[in-house]
Amino acid sequence: MNLDNNWFTELNSSTGCAFSLHIKSKLHEEQTPFQNIIIYQTTKFGNLMVLDGYVMLTERDNFIYHEMITHPVLFTHPKPRKVAIIGGGDCGSLREVTKHSYLEQIIQIEIDERVTRLAEQYFPSLCESNNDPRVKFQFEDAIQWIAKAPDNSLDVIIVDSTDPLGHGEGLFTTAFFRDCRRVLGSKGLLVQQSESPLLHLPLLQSIHKSMREGGFKSTKTLQFPLPVYPSGWWTATMAGDNLTYLRAADAYNEPINTNYYNADIQKASFILPNFLIEALPE
Amino acid sequence: MNLDNNWFTELNSSTGCAFSLHIKSKLHEEQTPFQNIIIYQTTKFGNLMVLDGYVMLTERDNFIYHEMITHPVLFTHPKPRKVAIIGGGDCGSLREVTKHSYLEQIIQIEIDERVTRLAEQYFPSLCESNNDPRVKFQFEDAIQWIAKAPDNSLDVIIVDSTDPLGHGEGLFTTAFFRDCRRVLGSKGLLVQQSESPLLHLPLLQSIHKSMREGGFKSTKTLQFPLPVYPSGWWTATMAGDNLTYLRAADAYNEPINTNYYNADIQKASFILPNFLIEALPE
Repeated sequence: MNLDNNWFTELNSSTGCAFSLHIKSKLHEEQTPFQNIIIYQTTKFGNLMVLDGYVMLTERDNFIYHEMITHPVLFTHPKPRKVAIIGGGDCGSLREVTKHSYLEQIIQIEIDERVTRLAEQYFPSLCESNNDPRVKFQFEDAIQWIAKAPDNSLDVIIVDSTDPLGHGEGLFTTAFFRDCRRVLGSKGLLVQQSESPLLHLPLLQSIHKSMREGGFKSTKTLQFPLPVYPSGWWTATMAGDNLTYLRAADAYNEPINTNYYNADIQKASFILPNFLIEALPE
Repeated sequence: MNLDNNWFTELNSSTGCAFSLHIKSKLHEEQTPFQNIIIYQTTKFGNLMVLDGYVMLTERDNFIYHEMITHPVLFTHPKPRKVAIIGGGDCGSLREVTKHSYLEQIIQIEIDERVTRLAEQYFPSLCESNNDPRVKFQFEDAIQWIAKAPDNSLDVIIVDSTDPLGHGEGLFTTAFFRDCRRVLGSKGLLVQQSESPLLHLPLLQSIHKSMREGGFKSTKTLQFPLPVYPSGWWTATMAGDNLTYLRAADAYNEPINTNYYNADIQKASFILPNFLIEALPE
């Protein structure tokens, strides 16, 4: 069956599959210095943001991604106070991070301010914590920002990036992870979105390798569903010296309002299927 | 971007999304008394079977579904000996079931013999246990077969069906589950594929309701990724009197060769996200 012009399709020729969403209307399109941004209204998934032809997020299912890229790492760190979000322009991760009331400073470094301004307009619920007094926005290149940041100045870095193509590419390199490790020190933790375990396994393996080459002693992948990303199955990978810790009392009792995440889900998300256990380092 | 004729698309208009696979060639097409069957060779997912326009399976990712619809229920039953598979014509579930060496009798009741004959031809690895001496094939309507089966004559029923449309519809009713409960007795267990937790939540809720109305005291949903099914996220739902048991020694030590399943994955698959905990009965 062929799809008519009322569908937006993300075509992944290298993976041999494509995903489409039925569209009511195009709400906005612009070319920024960094990328093409389109906002659609879909019939069943709410508003959709597309960057350079790739689905960034929909209103319907972004909660899974944003909760799983933020809460597990924040509950794995014994005492996080200062957090940086790299990328994350739609502010969904930022909103989840602000739910942790004990955090003192949250800085978001997004290269393209237009993503954030359009999120404020078309995804207002994701931006409802943008005025939290602990939050600071830097609209600049995160690679350069991290390179200039002082040693031991952050507790957690959340890399909420696009795919390793174009301006996102530098966020997947050993040099970048080495800078992150320096800024985090030995107690800090990093988490990065790390693509589909079925479609992008060599890339997932190379992320582990680069993180370890960058100085992180341990790396661990967690998995979750993500219906609008290729294969509907996605991962995040954590890096740090001790990734086994769980602030269980806080995770079970903290009054964090979530739709997907809970402390048992955190534990379960690190349980990997056999083919991933074989493919990834211990 | 539009897809050309080298793509097979499964269009789900009611869910507002579509999934496409890039095709090398069409290997076979026929109309049986029950459905239209097409076999494609894809570029990245191996062979693909399509029933009435819906993806049934691909060579690349069917292992997740077939392992998760079979091994969890078989390791939850304390002492299974007699198993029935309802549907399952591609024989992938059957192959997984035969890996349990202590089983004495495995009967598969598939309405459309052509599905099995084409699986033997185009998915030979799934059919490699079809000649196991414990296996018996019945090509007939499973609803009538179950209605005639003696009380307490099975330990486990695996409902590996198509969606609740057309000839699959009767496999989702209270009347069917009541017959299954009678045939299983109080110690038997049933498992059924139960669609996407994101896209088909009302249906998933109605499956629990029908199972309980059919006489099962307890029902529990487990989840797993399934890249080629709508949303890439799928469930199976178990029914029985005690679903908390895990034959842990067997599950951890049994020499079952799997690609996705392991005993920790079994435990993790029953951990549900918050919105499902709220939506489904305890």
